[in-house]
Amino acid sequence: MSIPPSEHIFRHYEEELVQLQGRLLVMGGFAEERLGQALHAAVQRDVALAEQVIAGDEPINTLHKEIDDRCFKLLALRQPLAVDLRSILAAVKINTDLERVGDLAVNIAEAVRRYLHHPPVKELVDLPRMAAIAQSMLRDALDAFVRRDVDLAQRVLDQDDELDALKRQVFRDLLGVMFSRPATIEPSLDLLLISRHLERVGDHATNVAEDIIFMVSARDVRHVPERPA
Amino acid sequence: MSIPPSEHIFRHYEEELVQLQGRLLVMGGFAEERLGQALHAAVQRDVALAEQVIAGDEPINTLHKEIDDRCFKLLALRQPLAVDLRSILAAVKINTDLERVGDLAVNIAEAVRRYLHHPPVKELVDLPRMAAIAQSMLRDALDAFVRRDVDLAQRVLDQDDELDALKRQVFRDLLGVMFSRPATIEPSLDLLLISRHLERVGDHATNVAEDIIFMVSARDVRHVPERPA
Repeated sequence: MSIPPSEHIFRHYEEELVQLQGRLLVMGGFAEERLGQALHAAVQRDVALAEQVIAGDEPINTLHKEIDDRCFKLLALRQPLAVDLRSILAAVKINTDLERVGDLAVNIAEAVRRYLHHPPVKELVDLPRMAAIAQSMLRDALDAFVRRDVDLAQRVLDQDDELDALKRQVFRDLLGVMFSRPATIEPSLDLLLISRHLERVGDHATNVAEDIIFMVSARDVRHVPERPA
Repeated sequence: MSIPPSEHIFRHYEEELVQLQGRLLVMGGFAEERLGQALHAAVQRDVALAEQVIAGDEPINTLHKEIDDRCFKLLALRQPLAVDLRSILAAVKINTDLERVGDLAVNIAEAVRRYLHHPPVKELVDLPRMAAIAQSMLRDALDAFVRRDVDLAQRVLDQDDELDALKRQVFRDLLGVMFSRPATIEPSLDLLLISRHLERVGDHATNVAEDIIFMVSARDVRHVPERPA
């Protein structure tokens, strides 16, 4: 039995969209893993692991270009409409956000490497918690993308508030440490920087979640002043 | 004389692309202006101006949605190919970058407002210089977009090195200040934060420049390890 051409094209197209999704998940998995490694390096004082994160950006950058290229070809060759067009535009944006998360993992690992030149400033508790939230936001955002799950995307937006609260906590703690022990100013600044980078990972996961809500519902939730807590 | 339908469509389409460009320029102009105001508020110790920047994000957010919508409709209704498709995808990405620059202007103004609660830490020289470079990068990137000027886009990439050098200078200076006068730690942190935000404005201008090089030449210069200085 031969498949009629139009159905063949349709199937092939669906398959391409599924592949595109799969590549974004691979990229998200890399980004999440690298964030985890960077924080593990900080807690375990493992300079070699930090170096590994710093040197290991290549797979994400390669995927970034490949996914952009897939999106461009899908738009050029398939001329998708409505929800398919919105999905591919969402993929273009999610791809950009994931690439930035990869960059942030490198930035965190660089701050960790500098931090490890100094004796420990304090026990690292809140930063690994921030990282765990940021990783969970990323994972949920990508799950929401695959399952077109607006409720899950909404929960990603809610988690961002927790991340912000922890960031403020970290800031207050470190300000106290620096003030009472000026010798710790330099390494404390690196811890502060790490908390800011983690906050930005949360911002990128938030962007992804907002893109998904738009993709699924064609409803633009960006720049809505009031958001349910 | 009646215009044949195809030419009519063609003209209308060209006109839409020119309008799209125009809207991005307006948005870029707003972003640049707001950055300037935030720094002016810091130098002149003008709390009211900082408040004005914090409260004035609405026009950029409105343009962000409008431009996204224009791009979506152009893709859906015109099904562009080759350079036109690349231009619209570039517009989608540039729109995202400019919106983030708008957010950064707010973040800078918030740091300025906090900073102004304290006596001056030092004369502000390098931060306004950083802002001037970041603004010039944005302006050049948008000019390069309109004129499809790859050389100008390349010069944007080069300016980013200057911005990085100044950021490191600011860091060293403020570290010295905090160390010798712990009472200045809190306001100094806000100055540090402002320098990081300005660095990120430069990153966004760099993204725009890279998108333009891709748009014009279909050459992907992202993630190229060596870049001529």
